Amino acid sequence: MTIPSSYKKIVLNNAPSKEVNLKYGEESSTFRIERTTFDKNSVKDGEMVIKMLYFSNDPAQKGWMQKGIDSKRMYLRILENDPVISLGLGEVVFSKSSKHSVGDKVTGRFTWEEYIVVNEERITKTIDESLGLPLTSYLSSVGMTGLTAYFGVTKVGELKKGQTIVISAASGATGSMCVQIAKHIVGASKVVGISSSPKKCKWVESLGADVCVNYHDTDYQKQLSDIIGDDFVDVYYDNVGGEILSFMLSKVKQFGNIVACGAISGYNDAEKGEVTGWPEITRNRLTIRGFIIIDFIKDFAEGINAIVGAIKEGKINITEDVSVVDLSKEIDVLAKVPETWGLLFSNKKPNGKLVTKIA
Amino acid sequence: MTIPSSYKKIVLNNAPSKEVNLKYGEESSTFRIERTTFDKNSVKDGEMVIKMLYFSNDPAQKGWMQKGIDSKRMYLRILENDPVISLGLGEVVFSKSSKHSVGDKVTGRFTWEEYIVVNEERITKTIDESLGLPLTSYLSSVGMTGLTAYFGVTKVGELKKGQTIVISAASGATGSMCVQIAKHIVGASKVVGISSSPKKCKWVESLGADVCVNYHDTDYQKQLSDIIGDDFVDVYYDNVGGEILSFMLSKVKQFGNIVACGAISGYNDAEKGEVTGWPEITRNRLTIRGFIIIDFIKDFAEGINAIVGAIKEGKINITEDVSVVDLSKEIDVLAKVPETWGLLFSNKKPNGKLVTKIA
Repeated sequence: MTIPSSYKKIVLNNAPSKEVNLKYGEESSTFRIERTTFDKNSVKDGEMVIKMLYFSNDPAQKGWMQKGIDSKRMYLRILENDPVISLGLGEVVFSKSSKHSVGDKVTGRFTWEEYIVVNEERITKTIDESLGLPLTSYLSSVGMTGLTAYFGVTKVGELKKGQTIVISAASGATGSMCVQIAKHIVGASKVVGISSSPKKCKWVESLGADVCVNYHDTDYQKQLSDIIGDDFVDVYYDNVGGEILSFMLSKVKQFGNIVACGAISGYNDAEKGEVTGWPEITRNRLTIRGFIIIDFIKDFAEGINAIVGAIKEGKINITEDVSVVDLSKEIDVLAKVPETWGLLFSNKKPNGKLVTKIA
Repeated sequence: MTIPSSYKKIVLNNAPSKEVNLKYGEESSTFRIERTTFDKNSVKDGEMVIKMLYFSNDPAQKGWMQKGIDSKRMYLRILENDPVISLGLGEVVFSKSSKHSVGDKVTGRFTWEEYIVVNEERITKTIDESLGLPLTSYLSSVGMTGLTAYFGVTKVGELKKGQTIVISAASGATGSMCVQIAKHIVGASKVVGISSSPKKCKWVESLGADVCVNYHDTDYQKQLSDIIGDDFVDVYYDNVGGEILSFMLSKVKQFGNIVACGAISGYNDAEKGEVTGWPEITRNRLTIRGFIIIDFIKDFAEGINAIVGAIKEGKINITEDVSVVDLSKEIDVLAKVPETWGLLFSNKKPNGKLVTKIA
């Protein structure tokens, strides 16, 4: 495969303090497209060139680029004028690494570029295509998303067979995996999803949730109270923060666990992320644990085995777990990458994992 | 000792939804004084009559009586027209229990009454006066307050020797014990107190805090940031919730612990208890644990031994740990009991444990 002498990349133009500005060419534009030149001779030993095929779209990226967050308080930062960091999947097209050959499909923490030059240490996984899983699965069910859900439910939430769990953003990438893992791997007695439309709720229920509540219903809290009942729930898996979390603080049983996986409600507007009901934590002796998936890197093999096993047994659905936005036919394949990522924060977000295909 | 044929008690008249109304005789009065008759013949086997000597004043009592809290979400409730529950210390004056004799001094979960009739199961501790500790210590350093601080710091916060800790309400009953336990029992390398006046801060420092910050200073957050530095702290012991907690979420290091012991800022006004900065929990993988002292009942002996040992070694100060309000000379010894308890929520709260003496 020929590598062009120059290719495009998207850099952080102006770090956003609230919502991103997805338009190009303005002073406040969050992103900027640049062209970068490439010389094969500059590739060092241990490095390789990867042609990017898919980008993973993750709400956490907002935090990485957000203005006003102390870098010492953030495990990963995207600086202005640097390429935007994104999990992704690509194909090795040139290699000076002994570990990876041309043609290998690999995942890792990459950047919004048509091609990237990276050291072999940056590769998370070389894909074993003999397993017959769709490539996009490696950015969802059997990628970081699936692992996040697996360790979040089993190790952070410590959900046990026969227990009950409520999962917010249940039609989202992580949430939809949490539902399936809780019901079909752990064997929860009751799995309650929270999502944003009747259609999404129906999908969440098709994945294994006993019931799913639409938080746009004005009486969603009453619906949840009725479903949860007086025994409350063992675990709340929180992807949203804010109002729903505040309500759920009053619905987790004594000595129950809350998994602080994400807080998307406040990513664009901190006020919406405000939490009330904190005294519930003391009175009902709740434990809240924050985590990010790299904390479990030593256990990844265990997680992958559990998930792949469940896929083979038909317990986890990989036919509907990804929504792919295909930009590969665009004249400029990168141009709409930010806009596609922006869907995460809109009500147009499709079910499951949102993946962008650029080649 | 003669037991009168009738005595007074204070009952919950009108459960408060926000601040208490300490005046008597109004419809919205939180409390009401009643007279109750007493007949020695009504005392059953296993029961005893206790003359109350001291009441412990605890912010948690506000939650027990608060209107609008679901009883299923509260480990203890005071119902309207029932006597107000309070930890206390009294002397057995009549006994049909084989475990307790007349003259025994005992502590337990009692009520705001001049005399109480209780089953022996309600007694937490029979005081061993041969230890030579002041009686009020059993409501502070070697009572539930000291145990709360001990288990909160060592088991919930998991503070280790050489680590750092910030403690809010550090001149309070629990806070002042936390400071001493962290510094002199655990051996923390840095203990930072947060309190409400220069005088209180000076006292907190005299107990062992390396430094104490007055949160009424407009730049208290900057002061704390400078003291805490870029290494952040291992443990934050939270007695207050709200703004200070929200700030401290950004000051606990990765994988650090927050002890959710109390949230007094929101007890009278839930809005002041609102928490911002929740995403810090995920990004920095914080663990927050709520607890109440009865969760550690099996370990009480260990805690008492550790604290009494530290007192004997001069590591814990019991000469200044209690502020006693003496109502025993009042014509009506109970009348000012609620008002005294109300000091907890005012800026007139004295240092350390606030104890009310009624006899």
